[in-house]
Amino acid sequence: MEHRLHKLKAYLEAEDINMCFIQSKENVFYLTNFYTDPHERLMGLFLFSGHIAPFFICPQMEVNQAKTAGWKGEIVGYADHEDPWIKIQSAIASRKLGKIEKVAIEKEVVPYSRVEALSTITPNAHFVSIEEALNRMRVVKDHDEINILRKAAELADFGVQVGIHALKTGVTEMEVLATIEYELKKKGIREMSFSTMVLFGEKSGDPHGNPGLKTLSEGDFVLFDLGVVLEGYCSDITRTYVYKSFNKKQEEIYNTVLKAQKAALEASKPGVRIGDLDQIARTVITDAGYGDFFPHRLGHGLGINVHEYPSMSHTNDEILQEGMVYTIEPGIYVPQVGGVRIEDDVLITKDGHETLTNLSKEFTVLQEEVK
Amino acid sequence: MEHRLHKLKAYLEAEDINMCFIQSKENVFYLTNFYTDPHERLMGLFLFSGHIAPFFICPQMEVNQAKTAGWKGEIVGYADHEDPWIKIQSAIASRKLGKIEKVAIEKEVVPYSRVEALSTITPNAHFVSIEEALNRMRVVKDHDEINILRKAAELADFGVQVGIHALKTGVTEMEVLATIEYELKKKGIREMSFSTMVLFGEKSGDPHGNPGLKTLSEGDFVLFDLGVVLEGYCSDITRTYVYKSFNKKQEEIYNTVLKAQKAALEASKPGVRIGDLDQIARTVITDAGYGDFFPHRLGHGLGINVHEYPSMSHTNDEILQEGMVYTIEPGIYVPQVGGVRIEDDVLITKDGHETLTNLSKEFTVLQEEVK
Repeated sequence: MEHRLHKLKAYLEAEDINMCFIQSKENVFYLTNFYTDPHERLMGLFLFSGHIAPFFICPQMEVNQAKTAGWKGEIVGYADHEDPWIKIQSAIASRKLGKIEKVAIEKEVVPYSRVEALSTITPNAHFVSIEEALNRMRVVKDHDEINILRKAAELADFGVQVGIHALKTGVTEMEVLATIEYELKKKGIREMSFSTMVLFGEKSGDPHGNPGLKTLSEGDFVLFDLGVVLEGYCSDITRTYVYKSFNKKQEEIYNTVLKAQKAALEASKPGVRIGDLDQIARTVITDAGYGDFFPHRLGHGLGINVHEYPSMSHTNDEILQEGMVYTIEPGIYVPQVGGVRIEDDVLITKDGHETLTNLSKEFTVLQEEVK
Repeated sequence: MEHRLHKLKAYLEAEDINMCFIQSKENVFYLTNFYTDPHERLMGLFLFSGHIAPFFICPQMEVNQAKTAGWKGEIVGYADHEDPWIKIQSAIASRKLGKIEKVAIEKEVVPYSRVEALSTITPNAHFVSIEEALNRMRVVKDHDEINILRKAAELADFGVQVGIHALKTGVTEMEVLATIEYELKKKGIREMSFSTMVLFGEKSGDPHGNPGLKTLSEGDFVLFDLGVVLEGYCSDITRTYVYKSFNKKQEEIYNTVLKAQKAALEASKPGVRIGDLDQIARTVITDAGYGDFFPHRLGHGLGINVHEYPSMSHTNDEILQEGMVYTIEPGIYVPQVGGVRIEDDVLITKDGHETLTNLSKEFTVLQEEVK
């Protein structure tokens, strides 16, 4: 974590920021290795420019866990009946900072009440955002992060395989979903990276569809979209199948999405403009006549958040770099017919890419298993 | 929903608040019946004092769902490429409000960036909090809310029963947890009200313990703490058992907690000071010599949030009223031995109370089921 703190501190100094308060569980984890969600309770990291030592504040009962996780600096604990802001005020006062004129915070997530509390401690400060800087630091993954992301992706592959084995005529979307999460929980997974999606038939045509009590019939599309949180990192896979039989239209849609997905995947290597990947996939889909049925961006970065930088949108002018991890997930959604989405997690390597999810994605007709 | 909006509007007028912006999914649901979590996307309700019509803003793709849920006022939708604040500015400008000097927001949750955006639209306003007023409105449940809470509590009872049936020597906490959630998902439950807790042996002695790969042995405590979200409302139950055999100490701890829990339950009726319930339970536990091992408040209100008003703390001077719903959950946690917590969901009725969770709580030695 040390080099991350140094990098952030260098940023503070370059920007003349006197103090920085970081309180989202994601950024706290990134900078301290302490992964916890204290809900409404205050937890956060105070960093300063110059030679002033940082401190971490958290509920008293979490102090030992923060130490164990690896935070080596000062920890300020507070009991439930204590006001954490009084403790923060003392910790800041003891550091003899001089004038605090510029304070960086996570503007997109820090509640207004906390900024009010901070303002009483630093009455002359104006607030700037630290989120962009942290998002940019997090976009390139290091060796340890990549190893975890690889394992998280393997578990996503496994989740889809469980779902396939659970299919039978008449089963509900929720039963299949429950079976997938059951098997992942048995492996020790405590949290999915987002609400698992299992959609049958024309319901697959809604990119925001909710699994429910719909039952599986022959000829249905079956769409799985799921991921796990493993040691603080997310995976995210989508696979779509047909059940027992299919028509030409389904096959055509599927193979168009697959061609688009593979085209964007093949173009993935250092130095390529990110927006071009979306454009490459979109062109395949548009040329096949389905351009109006691909309403979302190509994908998103993946890491501590299931959606983070880089955004795989056609407007993104950034360049792919070694260590970036993101999804490629084109889709075609035709009302009354259904939808197909195919999604892999992709790592940019030194001279190309590696797919972290590795389940077959050729057009597949699933059968009910004999048990 | 109409009477809730009227009540809130009356509050705005009494407090000389010109405008109110509500954006938490819980309060939006309470006031519009629209239950959704748009994550980072902006969704919210703008209310005004006087005869000025409210409006609801949400992503364009959710406009129809908001209508279907029952919101009858204006809906301002925005596409992904549009800035919702420009739409908000127009909607406010078209209302010809006059001077906006006092704006109410959810200070504890609204991100600072949104307050900055609001400030550019209402540059002369100061911000006050609307949360206390809404929390107080939500504390007394109406007939429809109570019916849903009753059903949610039944599903919590069911969840514990599933857990009991899944116990066998050598099973892991996570396997039992996965079985519980599997069976609830099959009934259509999409979300637990908090992370399900299944703890064996001395792990039950940590009120914040995490289920893991620990296996069940004869003589262990088994603690279940779980709840579901049903139609937007939460349940929350805790039961503790011993597995196959027990010692005197375990029985003594259990029966002390049970006595405390029943004493607080019996005292539950309109007109009683809330803090007294905590005190009644705490006295039973202290008299038995375990006062130092009951480190948390007696319970919490229950509704759209799993933790809401009233706080069942000994410092709460408020008075119990018909329609309040809360948990009673005393516990004793002895390091190296284990912990016992017993929790019911309780509704205050006209002249007493009704328990919404109804699973037996007498001291029970569980056996492995023959399957």
